[in-house]
Amino acid sequence: MTPTRAECERRDRDDPLASLRDQFVLPPGIIYLDGNSLGPPPRSTAPAIQQVITEQWGTDLIGGWNRHDWLTLPIRLGDLLAPLIGVGPGEILVADSTSVNLYKVLTVALQSARARDPQRTVVVSESENFPSDLYIAESVASACGCTLQLSATGGDPLAALDEHTAVLLLTQVDYRTGRLHDMAAATAAAHARGALVVWDLAHTAGALPIDLTRDDADFAVGCGYKFLNGGPGAPGFLWVNPRRAHPAMQPVRGWFGHAAPFEFAVEYRPASGIAGYQSGTPPVLSMVALEHGIRSVLAADALGGLAALRGKSIALTDLFIELVSPLEATHGVRVVSPLDGRQRGSQVSLTHPEDAYAVVQALIDRGVIGDFRAPDIARFGFAPLYTSYVDVYDAAAHLTEVLRTEAWRASQYAVRAAVT
Amino acid sequence: MTPTRAECERRDRDDPLASLRDQFVLPPGIIYLDGNSLGPPPRSTAPAIQQVITEQWGTDLIGGWNRHDWLTLPIRLGDLLAPLIGVGPGEILVADSTSVNLYKVLTVALQSARARDPQRTVVVSESENFPSDLYIAESVASACGCTLQLSATGGDPLAALDEHTAVLLLTQVDYRTGRLHDMAAATAAAHARGALVVWDLAHTAGALPIDLTRDDADFAVGCGYKFLNGGPGAPGFLWVNPRRAHPAMQPVRGWFGHAAPFEFAVEYRPASGIAGYQSGTPPVLSMVALEHGIRSVLAADALGGLAALRGKSIALTDLFIELVSPLEATHGVRVVSPLDGRQRGSQVSLTHPEDAYAVVQALIDRGVIGDFRAPDIARFGFAPLYTSYVDVYDAAAHLTEVLRTEAWRASQYAVRAAVT
Repeated sequence: MTPTRAECERRDRDDPLASLRDQFVLPPGIIYLDGNSLGPPPRSTAPAIQQVITEQWGTDLIGGWNRHDWLTLPIRLGDLLAPLIGVGPGEILVADSTSVNLYKVLTVALQSARARDPQRTVVVSESENFPSDLYIAESVASACGCTLQLSATGGDPLAALDEHTAVLLLTQVDYRTGRLHDMAAATAAAHARGALVVWDLAHTAGALPIDLTRDDADFAVGCGYKFLNGGPGAPGFLWVNPRRAHPAMQPVRGWFGHAAPFEFAVEYRPASGIAGYQSGTPPVLSMVALEHGIRSVLAADALGGLAALRGKSIALTDLFIELVSPLEATHGVRVVSPLDGRQRGSQVSLTHPEDAYAVVQALIDRGVIGDFRAPDIARFGFAPLYTSYVDVYDAAAHLTEVLRTEAWRASQYAVRAAVT
Repeated sequence: MTPTRAECERRDRDDPLASLRDQFVLPPGIIYLDGNSLGPPPRSTAPAIQQVITEQWGTDLIGGWNRHDWLTLPIRLGDLLAPLIGVGPGEILVADSTSVNLYKVLTVALQSARARDPQRTVVVSESENFPSDLYIAESVASACGCTLQLSATGGDPLAALDEHTAVLLLTQVDYRTGRLHDMAAATAAAHARGALVVWDLAHTAGALPIDLTRDDADFAVGCGYKFLNGGPGAPGFLWVNPRRAHPAMQPVRGWFGHAAPFEFAVEYRPASGIAGYQSGTPPVLSMVALEHGIRSVLAADALGGLAALRGKSIALTDLFIELVSPLEATHGVRVVSPLDGRQRGSQVSLTHPEDAYAVVQALIDRGVIGDFRAPDIARFGFAPLYTSYVDVYDAAAHLTEVLRTEAWRASQYAVRAAVT
């Protein structure tokens, strides 16, 4: 029996996580299903940034670097984020963009793998990986005469692992379909073939439990502006397994990664551990906004944390799938996300036989914000921190109505760009 | 005749640039001589960031990328900054940190020089260059089997140019002494030897007129948080001479540098021109703060612009040198900045026979904020946008008093770190 709206209201009343939504500024009349692309602002962010500008920067000027500990923001935010990805304090860095971070760790991974075995000259990934990761991987590989090998769409990248594989590079959640890689299994498969593994946690961190330590990963990077709610273009993060020694140094060796930057020595001497992965001066305002985003996820700790959020995420996405499934027979809308919640990130993706882009725009006209991903995906993110069961019900009802009335044929939106 | 305080008050009354100071939040009772390290916040910055958070991010959520044109911030801010460094619109990018930007352009410069002549395997710089630049240069050079060659302290890097030089890398203003390189002459000397030139404008941009086009430079990077007042860790900038074709692609090829990022193509196709130097998603909050910093410098346009600011900067630093010169005979304090204003950036650096660090801290105790640079430099920046002649007079008087009373021997400040 398909749930009714009243049933969804009851689920919201019974939802122990429901109060977490109050942390956020969400515009009235909007059902926001694009937090997998850009999370909304926590209420605490605006006053915190205001305070940094007026009471820290404006009051203490240069003294702010010490007095307000801006210098250690990359490490402090890493420590804050660490439990959300199953790593320890001092192991993870918040800095730069995800692409820059990937460039650093992939360079170290590839050089380290080759130092152990010069025959390993291949980076394995998949065509479905987020393009920026593939561009970076191609650049890093080609710079040292190595190659990037991609499994075909729908193929299994693990099948490509062999004695020439230096590094396996995977994004855990497929940005288009939401398909979830089994981190433990993929990592073990790569290790069994003698390869190192780099994980991109862009669509995972903040929505799904991650345990990089248990799953024995080698490197990870991730994004601060999706489920971590750090704000547009928030810095990314970077983790290197501290239980492994890598002969290679990270390539973008700026002064913040020096063991003693204020000695202003001519010779580079890397800070030990993850601190040595820093490059230039961190963007303090954007860093502090990310701090509040991370805290918005940590607020779930008292309510069961990421395990509880994951449970709700699966319930929300299961509900949406259940509600929109009839639309396949009537309007040819297909769910392309895995139907088994355990194999799915915190999103549901649909295709439409004619114009998924127009369908997304018609929903936006009605205040239901999802996004389109080329070539044919209508994508809906369900952030368990602030999405309600009624949101899901209403979004499905709007979609049904848009299809029934063919409102999408009249959609006037012309702007296609949006940030994943 | 040494100027009196009354004479300095008169100069302030007659200063056509004096009103520019009203743009800034400056704490009462402070003489801020460290704007060469971190500029103060323009008054417009806090409300602008507030608006971005609440009325853009919080209202339009993902739609902000298009509706508020966040997507083009790197190019738009570049266009805003372009006239301050003598380049055209569409030639310059605001993104990442100075160190990351240097990594990108130096890689392209070195690869391009070698593509033209494989015998050119040397990056020439000087020991006095800012260490982060040297660390990046060493990394870029060693990654391709090239070498970094540094002129000894006090030596002439141009003397090291020869047929093996691929790239000359110089920071125009020495961060310790304030010594100013002649950009036109150094660039011409490098070109005459067949080398490319990369300029770091960290301590130049926003305080001194720069004309990269007239001086025919090849590449430039610079910093947003010093004389551009962009806030702590503000993004840096990056310029590539559009009149030269370079065979090499920049190495950190993320999706923002793709010709059509929202096609999500597997293959990288660089955006044409400077846009292709982008990597990941830009940190919007820190970018908008930098926009207001750049505008604070552009506000001088109606009053003579950078030429007028430069004139005032020389007058301020000349005045400080005149006022502190007697301290050499009485207390052994020496001016190590060039005495000729035309060869000096917007700072004056002093040494003290015993402990320059303690002297700086004793001045900070009195509200005169300069900074210390290892091993023995007391450094005072004079940002012409907001520093008055009376500030200079009072700072010199405080210094004289600190030395006369030996207050510096009792200085309790223990924190040495500060960001250049």
